[in-house]
Amino acid sequence: MGQKVFHFTHRVSYADCTVGNHVYHSRFLEILERARGEFFRSLGGSLLDWQEQDVIFPVMACGMKFRAMARYDDLLGVRLWVAGLGRARFACASEIHNASGTLLHEAVIDVVCTTIEGRPRRLPSPLFAALQGYLTPAAGAETSP
Amino acid sequence: MGQKVFHFTHRVSYADCTVGNHVYHSRFLEILERARGEFFRSLGGSLLDWQEQDVIFPVMACGMKFRAMARYDDLLGVRLWVAGLGRARFACASEIHNASGTLLHEAVIDVVCTTIEGRPRRLPSPLFAALQGYLTPAAGAETSP
Amino acid sequence: MGQKVFHFTHRVSYADCTVGNHVYHSRFLEILERARGEFFRSLGGSLLDWQEQDVIFPVMACGMKFRAMARYDDLLGVRLWVAGLGRARFACASEIHNASGTLLHEAVIDVVCTTIEGRPRRLPSPLFAALQGYLTPAAGAETSP
Amino acid sequence: MGQKVFHFTHRVSYADCTVGNHVYHSRFLEILERARGEFFRSLGGSLLDWQEQDVIFPVMACGMKFRAMARYDDLLGVRLWVAGLGRARFACASEIHNASGTLLHEAVIDVVCTTIEGRPRRLPSPLFAALQGYLTPAAGAETSP
Repeated sequence: MGQKVFHFTHRVSYADCTVGNHVYHSRFLEILERARGEFFRSLGGSLLDWQEQDVIFPVMACGMKFRAMARYDDLLGVRLWVAGLGRARFACASEIHNASGTLLHEAVIDVVCTTIEGRPRRLPSPLFAALQGYLTPAAGAETSP
Repeated sequence: MGQKVFHFTHRVSYADCTVGNHVYHSRFLEILERARGEFFRSLGGSLLDWQEQDVIFPVMACGMKFRAMARYDDLLGVRLWVAGLGRARFACASEIHNASGTLLHEAVIDVVCTTIEGRPRRLPSPLFAALQGYLTPAAGAETSP
Repeated sequence: MGQKVFHFTHRVSYADCTVGNHVYHSRFLEILERARGEFFRSLGGSLLDWQEQDVIFPVMACGMKFRAMARYDDLLGVRLWVAGLGRARFACASEIHNASGTLLHEAVIDVVCTTIEGRPRRLPSPLFAALQGYLTPAAGAETSP
Repeated sequence: MGQKVFHFTHRVSYADCTVGNHVYHSRFLEILERARGEFFRSLGGSLLDWQEQDVIFPVMACGMKFRAMARYDDLLGVRLWVAGLGRARFACASEIHNASGTLLHEAVIDVVCTTIEGRPRRLPSPLFAALQGYLTPAAGAETSP
């Protein structure tokens, strides 16, 4: 079991913000997509590499909690780990803090492993093993492979 | 108690889509924001009207399930109702179907009522009453005003 | 020759806006994409219909002038016409006004006609004829078919 | 006179892309906004620093040419320079190449200097001087301060 955490940073742009000078809620999903992309790259294969082997990772569900406002020009620190890991799916948990250390955002994003056509398939073994290094399940989360 | 449902339609644009010709997951939050905007207008005051009275409705949390792909040019039908209603918050539930009647997306978005400065405040009485008309609580959801 | 103008409306959402309560500049391109989509539908075939016949319309160039701010909840009126028309391309001109009649935005978007693979191809004859109805060329613009 | 060029990189995400696996045209403006943000930071003051001194830089006009497709996971190299510089405005030119060196995108973005209220004001002297270092005017562009 893991306990590793992946780190990613994102500088808030005007495009991320809305009226009232805070990050528009949907933009957190874009930031997390960028973070997962770099997380995969760090595990040994980019999402593009996997796609070329007919393996893609659509988002099936997500839950987000907005704890405090992210502001223009904030340097956001994203912490990413695996909160659940199955044969053909995993749950990607995250926390986002600003530079002052305030917790702004929490999320769990459920990702499934499929072919490009959309048929579910097992997570490739090397990827499964790599994800285990980041597995810190929440109580009761599915973790059996 | 309610059982009313608010209806909204959205035509999928290229801006909504990503690689593989499906709506990018974060764009559903934008579609639902448009739907809530028109829902409020139908209840008697636009979000802008409320803002001018120092009442805003930030999103505190959300959960989404992606059931099937929405495609370019799909005409999406959004059904919106109130799944929980408190003194200073409500939960906005939704289902999105395509023109063939396939369920594509389910969401619950928790919205809180605050001043522009961010202090929680009670939902204005006429709004509370109007939201009750759309209240169809899920089992166990908070519904006491 | 034409002089027809196509009309489209767009309600500004929070997702469209940025810090300072105005529409973020790139979002005008999304609004204009929606307008062109409905313009094509009105001409007898949606962009999806054309795509299924191996005809697509990528944007090759664009110019925009930002005249005044568009604000949250503004109901924008988009006027669209053809400012240049060639064998395999056309220029889509537009003006956007708010409900008070203030001119907010002007654009010319150069669109080319290609196969899905990206090879230039002639505009289908019925489409060329339909576009001619909206042709109001700027001085010096290319208009020979 | 200058000849300096500012460099910025951007990794293409799924959020940037649309049907057909290429970057949606409006997203280039978001990428260029990020690039200008870092450009300003490199000149000695972030856009947020300037805003706190009642100096903002709205986009007044832009022109873009789309030369070739940017694809998912491309590492884009943005080159930025000043193509025109006036008392209260400047033109920010850019080229974007992919990692193979193919030119994908060219732009000129006209930025004006105003107060937060929108009144035009002179570019602060240190900023004007810093921008001069990057001035490589196109033939005929306005360059007198």
